[in-house]
Amino acid sequence: MDVEDLIWPHGIAAQTMAAGLREGGDDISVVVAPPGTTSAAVFTRSRFAGPSVTLSRRHLAAAPARAVVTVAKNANVATGSQGTEHAAELARLVAGRLGLTAEQVLVASTGVIGRPYPMPRLRSALAALAPDALSAGPADVARAMMTTDTVPKGASVALPGGAHIVGVAKGVGMMEPDMATMLVWLTTDAALGAAALDRSLRQAVASTFNSLSIDTDTSTSDSCALLASGAAGGVDEAAFTAALTEVCLDLTRQLARDGEGAEKLLVVRVTGARDDAQAKRIAKAVVNSPLVKTAVHGADPNWGRVVMAVGKCSDETDVEPQRVRVRFGELGVYPEVAAAPAELTRLRDIMGADEVEIGVELGIADGDWTVYGCDLTCGYVRVNADYTT
Amino acid sequence: MDVEDLIWPHGIAAQTMAAGLREGGDDISVVVAPPGTTSAAVFTRSRFAGPSVTLSRRHLAAAPARAVVTVAKNANVATGSQGTEHAAELARLVAGRLGLTAEQVLVASTGVIGRPYPMPRLRSALAALAPDALSAGPADVARAMMTTDTVPKGASVALPGGAHIVGVAKGVGMMEPDMATMLVWLTTDAALGAAALDRSLRQAVASTFNSLSIDTDTSTSDSCALLASGAAGGVDEAAFTAALTEVCLDLTRQLARDGEGAEKLLVVRVTGARDDAQAKRIAKAVVNSPLVKTAVHGADPNWGRVVMAVGKCSDETDVEPQRVRVRFGELGVYPEVAAAPAELTRLRDIMGADEVEIGVELGIADGDWTVYGCDLTCGYVRVNADYTT
Repeated sequence: MDVEDLIWPHGIAAQTMAAGLREGGDDISVVVAPPGTTSAAVFTRSRFAGPSVTLSRRHLAAAPARAVVTVAKNANVATGSQGTEHAAELARLVAGRLGLTAEQVLVASTGVIGRPYPMPRLRSALAALAPDALSAGPADVARAMMTTDTVPKGASVALPGGAHIVGVAKGVGMMEPDMATMLVWLTTDAALGAAALDRSLRQAVASTFNSLSIDTDTSTSDSCALLASGAAGGVDEAAFTAALTEVCLDLTRQLARDGEGAEKLLVVRVTGARDDAQAKRIAKAVVNSPLVKTAVHGADPNWGRVVMAVGKCSDETDVEPQRVRVRFGELGVYPEVAAAPAELTRLRDIMGADEVEIGVELGIADGDWTVYGCDLTCGYVRVNADYTT
Repeated sequence: MDVEDLIWPHGIAAQTMAAGLREGGDDISVVVAPPGTTSAAVFTRSRFAGPSVTLSRRHLAAAPARAVVTVAKNANVATGSQGTEHAAELARLVAGRLGLTAEQVLVASTGVIGRPYPMPRLRSALAALAPDALSAGPADVARAMMTTDTVPKGASVALPGGAHIVGVAKGVGMMEPDMATMLVWLTTDAALGAAALDRSLRQAVASTFNSLSIDTDTSTSDSCALLASGAAGGVDEAAFTAALTEVCLDLTRQLARDGEGAEKLLVVRVTGARDDAQAKRIAKAVVNSPLVKTAVHGADPNWGRVVMAVGKCSDETDVEPQRVRVRFGELGVYPEVAAAPAELTRLRDIMGADEVEIGVELGIADGDWTVYGCDLTCGYVRVNADYTT
C-alpha cells in the first residue's frame, strides 16, 4: 500500500509540528496511544547512545509507553549533561500537553551530533500539541521524521480478526550519526500483553532491521518501538509475530532501497550454513563488501568478489571452497559459470534490475539467513563528503 | 628514496617479461636470490586462497625460496584443478630456466578472479628468463606487478654494517590484508637464519601490512615474502626487525595512499585502550567507517562520526563515552570542540592536508595501536563499478 494511503490502527493518533529545524515542513512528531496500551522497544547497542535512547530505555522499564516524540535534524548526541536535561524536558513537555506522566513518553532524535537543542523553539512548537489536534496520518509522521531520506516510509498489514499493524520508519544510513538514524514506530490495535509484544518485536527485528546494512556504520540513536492500543481485541501471538515481521520486512526493504546514494536494493541469502548465525555473518560480509556493492552498482556479474567476501571470513574454518555455490538471481555462476548466450542475456537482465539477489550455498548444514543492503555509488560519497558539520 | 632509484641488495637480481596480459609493459616478474639464501613468508588467511598461495605455502615448508615469480592481471583464483596445475607448471618453468628445484620457487598472481592462465603465452614469455638476463631493478619489478595501482611502490633501509633491506609492493583494492591483492617482496643481503627471519617478518607485518585497510575486503592472494641473500654478513636481529618494520611501514603508507580512488592517507591511532588488541579493533572500526572516510574526503572535521565509529564497537563494554577524547592532528575536538578562530583555521589546514591523522584516547589503560587507510571517493566507486569481469 502506498505510504500516503496508510491510516493508523484504532486508538492510535498523531500530530506533527514545525520548530524550524528543517527548512520548510514539520520536524517534530508525536504518536499517541490510548490508556491500556502495551508497548515494547529495542534500541541501539552503541557505546555512544544518546540521551534520547538512555531516557527512553529508562521510561520503558518504568511504564508502558503512551506517546513517542521524534525530533528530526538534531540528534542530541554527545551534548553532555545539557543534552540529558533537554531530553528529560522534552518528555515532560509532551506529557504535560497530553495529560501523561513523563515516564509514559519515549523520546527519539535524529540529525546532527554535538549540537544542543534550540529549546525555546522546541517549547514554542510543542505548545501547539493537544489531544484534540491529533490529526496527522502515518505519512505525515514519516515525513516529519526524515533527514536525508528521499521518501517517507510506512507499511501496514491486516491481521485475521480485524486488527492492523502500521509502521513508519526513517533512515538512510542506518548509521549516519549526523544525518540518518534508523527510527521505526510500529503501532497496532491488536491486544497483546507486554511480554508477548516484546517477544514478537525482538523476533521480527532479528530477521529484518537487524539484517539491514547500508554502510556498516551503527547509529547512536537507532530506536524501534511498538505500541498496541488493544482496541481491536486479542490475536494469536504467532500470527501477530508473522504479520509484524511482514511489516518490518517491508520497511527494511524501503530503508535499504532509500540508502544514501543507493540505486539498487541488494538482497544476500546464505544457505547451507552450519547454523543461522554463521549464515548471517557470511551474508553480512557479502552485503557489506564495498567491492560487491560497487559490482552491483555497475551491473557486473562479478562472482569473484562474492567468493572473495565469503573467503575473507577466515574464522569460518568449515567453509570449504569446493562445496560453495554462488548464484545471481536464480542463475548459478560458480562453480559452473553461466556461458550460453541465453544465460548471458538473462544474467545481464538480473544484474541490471533495481533489485539484485545474491545466493551463496555453503554445503555444510541447514543454516539460512537473508540480509538487506544496497549498492555503493558516487551519490553515497557525495552526500557524505559534501555534508559539513 | 624515490622508488626509481632503488637498487637490489647484494646477491639479489630480477627479470621482467611481457606475456601480453597487460596492454603495453611487462606483466611477469621473477626475483632471484643466490645459494645460501634464507627465507620467510606470510600469506592470506582467506578461505578462498588461490593455488599460488597454497603452492607457495607448500614450497616454503619444503625448501628456502630462491625465486619469486609474480603474474599480474590474472589472479588464477577459483580456477579449479586446472588452476592448481597451472601454478605448479609456472614454478617448474621458472625453476627449469634458473637451475633450481620447483620447491625453491614461490608463485604469486594478482588480477581477475576465475579466468584460467593463457599458458601458451606464459610459457613463451618465460622462455626468455635466464641467469644472465637478470637486469631488472626494484622499480621494474614493482611496475610489472601493478594492476590498478597508479604508481610502483618500493622502499629501502640501510642497516648498520652495510646490509640493506629493499622491498617492493603492489595493491590498491580488496585490501584488508590479514596476514589486496597485496603482494610484497622484501629482500636483504643481511645474513639471518630462517627462524629469525620468520620472527622478524611476522613482527614487522603485524604493525604495518596487517594494520592497513583500504576497503575491508581481504584478498584471496595476499602474500609477503622476505629473501635474505646473506651477502653482507650477519646483523643484530633486533636492529634488523626495526629496519624491516621501517621498510614495511614505508610500503604500507605508499599502499594506503594509492588505495583505489584514494586522495588522502588516513592514519588512525587509538591510545589508552585496555590492551593493544582492543586499540586495533577500535582503530579498524574508525579507519573502515565509510562515514569517517567520506568526511576525510570532504575535509570535514566531523568528530561525531568518529565517536559513532567508536560507539558501534558495542562489545567493548569498558569504553565509557565520558572518558573518550578525539583529536584531528594535534587539535582536540571532543569533548572540547575547537572553536577559537585560530583553531578553526588550523582545523581546516589539518583536514585539507593530503595526510590526516585521527587520534582516539580511551582513558582505560595503555593499549596503543595505529592503523592506515584512505578516504572514500567517487574514484573508488568508479574504478570498481566499471571494472568488468
